[in-house]
Amino acid sequence: MQRTEIATLGEFGLIKHLTEDIELKNESTKYGIGDDCAVMQYPADKQILMTTDLLMEGVHFDLTYCPLKHLGYKAAMVNLSDVYAMNGMPKQMTVSLAISKRFCVEDIEEFYAGLRLACDQHGVDLVGGDTTSSLTGLAISITVTGEAAKEKVVYRHGAQATDVICVTGDLGAAYMGLQLLEREKAVFDAQMREAKNPEEQLQIAQPDFTGKEYLLERQLKPEARRDIILKLAEKDIVPTSMMDISDGLSSELLHICTDSDKGCRIYEERIPIDYQTAVTAEEFNMNLTTCALNGGEDYELLFTVPLADHDKVAEIEGVKVIGYITKKEMGCALITRDGNEFELKAQGWNPLKD
Amino acid sequence: MQRTEIATLGEFGLIKHLTEDIELKNESTKYGIGDDCAVMQYPADKQILMTTDLLMEGVHFDLTYCPLKHLGYKAAMVNLSDVYAMNGMPKQMTVSLAISKRFCVEDIEEFYAGLRLACDQHGVDLVGGDTTSSLTGLAISITVTGEAAKEKVVYRHGAQATDVICVTGDLGAAYMGLQLLEREKAVFDAQMREAKNPEEQLQIAQPDFTGKEYLLERQLKPEARRDIILKLAEKDIVPTSMMDISDGLSSELLHICTDSDKGCRIYEERIPIDYQTAVTAEEFNMNLTTCALNGGEDYELLFTVPLADHDKVAEIEGVKVIGYITKKEMGCALITRDGNEFELKAQGWNPLKD
Repeated sequence: MQRTEIATLGEFGLIKHLTEDIELKNESTKYGIGDDCAVMQYPADKQILMTTDLLMEGVHFDLTYCPLKHLGYKAAMVNLSDVYAMNGMPKQMTVSLAISKRFCVEDIEEFYAGLRLACDQHGVDLVGGDTTSSLTGLAISITVTGEAAKEKVVYRHGAQATDVICVTGDLGAAYMGLQLLEREKAVFDAQMREAKNPEEQLQIAQPDFTGKEYLLERQLKPEARRDIILKLAEKDIVPTSMMDISDGLSSELLHICTDSDKGCRIYEERIPIDYQTAVTAEEFNMNLTTCALNGGEDYELLFTVPLADHDKVAEIEGVKVIGYITKKEMGCALITRDGNEFELKAQGWNPLKD
Repeated sequence: MQRTEIATLGEFGLIKHLTEDIELKNESTKYGIGDDCAVMQYPADKQILMTTDLLMEGVHFDLTYCPLKHLGYKAAMVNLSDVYAMNGMPKQMTVSLAISKRFCVEDIEEFYAGLRLACDQHGVDLVGGDTTSSLTGLAISITVTGEAAKEKVVYRHGAQATDVICVTGDLGAAYMGLQLLEREKAVFDAQMREAKNPEEQLQIAQPDFTGKEYLLERQLKPEARRDIILKLAEKDIVPTSMMDISDGLSSELLHICTDSDKGCRIYEERIPIDYQTAVTAEEFNMNLTTCALNGGEDYELLFTVPLADHDKVAEIEGVKVIGYITKKEMGCALITRDGNEFELKAQGWNPLKD
């Protein structure tokens, strides 16, 4: 494979190379890459949503099993998902990269290919960014802006007692995908250490993930749920509260209940889980419900709607009603298959603890 | 000094601790920290400006001589300066930090103190961000949004032949400040290595920067030129092109000329330079004009105005006319004190060209 050193282009040359053929798609985007700021203009009846995320190599991603194109795609999705979680539509994105010397121009092209694919699929303009060097790993900072009519913006704090609690898609699959990748990485590393020479190293078999494709895709190529936001709008449903599930269902549901000053009941048997997730949890000897409650990175939506909208929301493909909001005094609990109640606890992924 | 481990608070606890007393000041800020997105709303006649920067430890800053409070202040200024450079007023800021284990809660408090001081002085609301961990150094990503009336936004590409070229403040001081700090750091490191025991290490004198305070302040605590933008508005001057000087005057002026498809002439004798900068360049045996042309991090403004505005602009304190825009065919040149012409070259700081 060709390897062009980044120093041959320099910062301005690299940005130009990666972005010169970008065409701006949105009416609200007035000026993109190439000046001190990007310029936007929104109608006065729209509110503007803004979210930002900083992803660090070794903490948020591992390049031994995450190809750079997938990483670009996922880094975009993480932020797009936050705009959908406010019931908005994303419109602009800026991306900043800090790159260490082990990366070449072709690597960054791969990253941008994934990023731009995500932008194209979600109708988002890439309007700016910053490219610089890093002494160590790769750092990625993405900011996304979007829009929603003022009366359509959905916060975390609006849930009301008797509202039904909904989740999209299925949960725990991205987490099981990560377990699989981590296990195979450990096996591969051990085989590399045992190999006596480079020839033996070359003969180490690639891991066989047959039957687990869905889990890997959920981990490596998550999809932000634009489709659900469009369907809610079609049916004229405005959720009373909403979040995306990045840290795990338990953690997010507790955020909604705390911010709304409410309690909740969810039913174990109603939590949507894919067959591959169940089989793999069994294989790893893990509790399936725990994986679905606390596994992160699903990027599904968690939201509440008034009881009156129950029938309308239940008709939407990919949405499952899993419980209901209660008064605060009732606390937050999971009702198990055998009818017991367990208090919900946030065991979501916390990158600053240990 | 007290040292509270960040793990004792966790990500959500740390953000809450650092931001819970923030009061939103701007009409355009509708919702700040605490949900999936920040929410803003701007009048339809305003355009929205957005800029973002990623700063990496060891590349953009050195914590051995840059206190964290100053770093927070400077990280904010770098971005505020980009909004002023579009002739806009900054309104919202998000900040993301990736923190390694050697930092404690008190360190991050210091950083936030500097950041919030900058926000207060410039009327900016801190509306969001992300705090996570890093395996190595500190990474800081800041995004700022702001506003300007559509007809007031100033790009790099609007310079016209015969326009006069203006710069604010003085140039090269931040660069000389950096040279001083780097020299003293090298001296200090050598003394530490030579010291025979911790007692001797404690007796190493702090460097004496008497008479160089201005240079250090320019390096460690730069000020974005809000005052100039306000004065231009007072005098009803809309520059034809503008940039902030972060990489050096030469580099930025070439950007304006290239983007505007023009040439320029600037006069060596007219480049504003502080007395301390001149004395210190002499001390370091460096060419003073080269320092002023290519030294980065001044965060002054470079702009062009029509010749008809010459007298009005010359009245503004802190603005100096240094030359004029020409047709493209004339090229870009510096006219030296002895009347020679030298082609301007971009030798600005390029973080990707080692």
